[in-house]
Amino acid sequence: MEKIVLIDCEDSAGLIYKISKIFFENGLNIEKNDEFVEKEKNRFFMRTEISGEADFDLVEKLLRRDLPKDANLRIVEKNKKKKMLLFATKESHCLGDILIRYHSGEMDADILGVVANHDTLRPLVEKFELPFYHLPAEGISREEHEAKVIELAKSLSPDLLVLAKYMRILTPNFVSHFEGKIVNIHHSFLPAFIGANPYKQAYERGVKIIGATAHFVNNNLDEGPIIAQDIVKVDHSYGWEEMRNLGRDVEKIVLAKAIKLALEERIFVYDNKTVIF
Amino acid sequence: MEKIVLIDCEDSAGLIYKISKIFFENGLNIEKNDEFVEKEKNRFFMRTEISGEADFDLVEKLLRRDLPKDANLRIVEKNKKKKMLLFATKESHCLGDILIRYHSGEMDADILGVVANHDTLRPLVEKFELPFYHLPAEGISREEHEAKVIELAKSLSPDLLVLAKYMRILTPNFVSHFEGKIVNIHHSFLPAFIGANPYKQAYERGVKIIGATAHFVNNNLDEGPIIAQDIVKVDHSYGWEEMRNLGRDVEKIVLAKAIKLALEERIFVYDNKTVIF
Amino acid sequence: MEKIVLIDCEDSAGLIYKISKIFFENGLNIEKNDEFVEKEKNRFFMRTEISGEADFDLVEKLLRRDLPKDANLRIVEKNKKKKMLLFATKESHCLGDILIRYHSGEMDADILGVVANHDTLRPLVEKFELPFYHLPAEGISREEHEAKVIELAKSLSPDLLVLAKYMRILTPNFVSHFEGKIVNIHHSFLPAFIGANPYKQAYERGVKIIGATAHFVNNNLDEGPIIAQDIVKVDHSYGWEEMRNLGRDVEKIVLAKAIKLALEERIFVYDNKTVIF
Amino acid sequence: MEKIVLIDCEDSAGLIYKISKIFFENGLNIEKNDEFVEKEKNRFFMRTEISGEADFDLVEKLLRRDLPKDANLRIVEKNKKKKMLLFATKESHCLGDILIRYHSGEMDADILGVVANHDTLRPLVEKFELPFYHLPAEGISREEHEAKVIELAKSLSPDLLVLAKYMRILTPNFVSHFEGKIVNIHHSFLPAFIGANPYKQAYERGVKIIGATAHFVNNNLDEGPIIAQDIVKVDHSYGWEEMRNLGRDVEKIVLAKAIKLALEERIFVYDNKTVIF
Repeated sequence: MEKIVLIDCEDSAGLIYKISKIFFENGLNIEKNDEFVEKEKNRFFMRTEISGEADFDLVEKLLRRDLPKDANLRIVEKNKKKKMLLFATKESHCLGDILIRYHSGEMDADILGVVANHDTLRPLVEKFELPFYHLPAEGISREEHEAKVIELAKSLSPDLLVLAKYMRILTPNFVSHFEGKIVNIHHSFLPAFIGANPYKQAYERGVKIIGATAHFVNNNLDEGPIIAQDIVKVDHSYGWEEMRNLGRDVEKIVLAKAIKLALEERIFVYDNKTVIF
Repeated sequence: MEKIVLIDCEDSAGLIYKISKIFFENGLNIEKNDEFVEKEKNRFFMRTEISGEADFDLVEKLLRRDLPKDANLRIVEKNKKKKMLLFATKESHCLGDILIRYHSGEMDADILGVVANHDTLRPLVEKFELPFYHLPAEGISREEHEAKVIELAKSLSPDLLVLAKYMRILTPNFVSHFEGKIVNIHHSFLPAFIGANPYKQAYERGVKIIGATAHFVNNNLDEGPIIAQDIVKVDHSYGWEEMRNLGRDVEKIVLAKAIKLALEERIFVYDNKTVIF
Repeated sequence: MEKIVLIDCEDSAGLIYKISKIFFENGLNIEKNDEFVEKEKNRFFMRTEISGEADFDLVEKLLRRDLPKDANLRIVEKNKKKKMLLFATKESHCLGDILIRYHSGEMDADILGVVANHDTLRPLVEKFELPFYHLPAEGISREEHEAKVIELAKSLSPDLLVLAKYMRILTPNFVSHFEGKIVNIHHSFLPAFIGANPYKQAYERGVKIIGATAHFVNNNLDEGPIIAQDIVKVDHSYGWEEMRNLGRDVEKIVLAKAIKLALEERIFVYDNKTVIF
Repeated sequence: MEKIVLIDCEDSAGLIYKISKIFFENGLNIEKNDEFVEKEKNRFFMRTEISGEADFDLVEKLLRRDLPKDANLRIVEKNKKKKMLLFATKESHCLGDILIRYHSGEMDADILGVVANHDTLRPLVEKFELPFYHLPAEGISREEHEAKVIELAKSLSPDLLVLAKYMRILTPNFVSHFEGKIVNIHHSFLPAFIGANPYKQAYERGVKIIGATAHFVNNNLDEGPIIAQDIVKVDHSYGWEEMRNLGRDVEKIVLAKAIKLALEERIFVYDNKTVIF
């Protein structure tokens, strides 16, 4: 049996010794181990893949006994597929990339379906025999629309919510229902552009680099903990549509990377930043 | 004799024909030619390296006759060394990189000297037998200090002013004396950070990419036309000093690239963005 | 009417003048123009997008009259969709990426279908309502198999043949039927690895970078003119399957880029290298 | 007191427990810890930064008692400056970059001097008040020349030998005297080019990427364990001298990175590949 043990807590002397002792005395092998101490905040992070037969309730109790009171501790099964709910609007580049990876077996998750505020992407989603939930936002208030989305999402019990170019702003209420489970992708540039059509703004500013950032969503819009980033170089000869198309390629690759990290339980979030093993 | 002809003007039919006709009829060969039309602004940019013996006053008159009234036209000698004045404060990474390139002959320019508001870098500069002008800013007003810097700079008649981590903010007055001749380097991140110690801010935000932007200085501080940008990837394990050290490597390479482009007369500036051939 | 004029020939004085004169005198506007002179081979390359109503037969005759005898000249319609035939084997990452781009309208071409030596990818291809041609190679000679593929491909008259991880080696005979029309993608590393499972070799060598190269296929296997390349960084913690997965992401992005360049008629091939505008 | 403990050995159950137990029971704090298990070779790697007062002879004896017989174990002082001997020929880009970093205090090592087979770089080195050892190779056999270099190098007892574009091939005899201590930088391309003027070869092949590799030197020339690699993109418009200049920038940055990793004792070598923490 393979498990992943995730610990973060205040740093103190002997933590690795105490934790590895419990694994050793319970007949568990460490297959892969990563630690990090954030010195400025005196915070310890440890992610350990262990194998072996053991009473994992006991292991958890022993860990809790020996770890600081404030410790976050999770023990998850390594090979259990996670359930993923996708959100989209009209653009297909991120969604299509996820579907192809899912179809080939590269993306090791169950996809519960796709929630969209427009019907545009239904034909694409249905090609892959996945449920498409069209929840239009027209004619109702933001709160009414979001209540429907929350109700649907809660009924499906996703482990991960992926905003694959979902062009609706989520309220704090939405976020509070799925704390730490929502991954978003957004463009990012040097310098940064806010508002409508950022690629046009970037074009007009004459940037030489465009990029994308995948991050967890918290109540600080587009400012949640960063999971992955990448960029591509451009020059004056790129029109803004070309920049957008290149940006889409970066967005899909960065989002796929972030999803993989989340599915493999490699990400810790602390104080609005990530530690990724 | 080799010349570089730089033209930018409103676009209209037949420009390339009219220009190349003048070159042809005056016995000039086109060695290298680049054009670009910015469609949204209907602006034509052309940079041509020509060789041959001709009456260049006549060539210029003919070009002015056939180009639109608003055309910007410059004809410069290709192999004439430019005079460069460097500005620095305390950090040596950009300045040192320029000095090594200068020493090896890779940087094809004459360096007039280094202006600094601190005396820290004098030993480094004097190793390379270059004048070091220490103009301290302590105890005098910003205006008084800048007046001294302007006086010195004007007396040296530089073609290019390179701010190699010069940590003083230039006033519009300074900029107006050297319009389009000042190249600066600054850090840039995704997302962007403003204010003191940006690397510490970036560390605290948990960015995965740090970068640098070289740009011309205009009166919109750190917002002038972008010449070159690059980035390097980081992760949670990089402390802010390590991010800063990596950032310095990016800064020096990007600044050197921008200087090279400026020395080779490859950059057009129009409406706060660059066209670079 | 918009056309693209593609010229490459021995360089000589006045070429741009002579060519732009013909455009001007026939009422054609230059929308976009790129030239390059390869000095070591004294070769001139020019790609011009022109608009306007003209007798293009006459324009072509005039160009041929004024260009050197050895000139390669092509005048193609700018907005005519090209016909693309895809080749694959079992891996879906490149093919899937092309299909998603095709479905969204981003890939501006008609796809004639997918030729494959295995039946694995049929379900994926048929989702997109495209013909899937399964031509198995088992039990027949290489020549017999290839004869069938050539017959099929010729019957479909493709403008571009894209090897989207088609794991069969093409013979010179095959290549001779579609000279300059076949684009391939292959892994490339620093240093390079040849033979089976290059990602495993790369893993065992401990490389820190993996990459991909898109190139035209000629009779020098995997050595045709390079169109596009990119890389991604790895470290010791990446197993070879992870390297392969990352390599697949690079492969699909690089192949898509090469296809776009080919569709837009931006590539010249000369002496086994490319000039790309 | 801060020490770095470096262990690599056959993997077995309980290693982390046994090692951290010894640290804990001897009053040593783990400041930073990294481990990696190379599954295919069943090899365990661990690098731990520890602090505290202890009898380190005893700690070492206890570790040797509890580790497998074949274990490699080293305990080094964290803040002790290493002694570095530089080798160069005529090119200054790598050497100059190292000297500037050394001058600014960024490169945390003592430089013993520069050994060169030409006298070209003497003025540069002497600017930085470092010994310059000119050992010409003309008129003597390879063996005689190398004997002189070995004699000099041994007399200086370097911890690290850095070949900063030293254009002489080292014999196995030379390497055997400084096993695991020699870092080299060489160009690397996609695909790779061997022999004289690789940048010219790369230009003629029309590559779109050029790169550099820093590696330890072993008896397999240019094939030692890779420490760091990076690349830069080029296109047809880059002449080979421009490619070489860009390549030099990559070379110097990659070499500096490799030196930093070596000075900080972050590199394990096993079976011709590196594990780097």
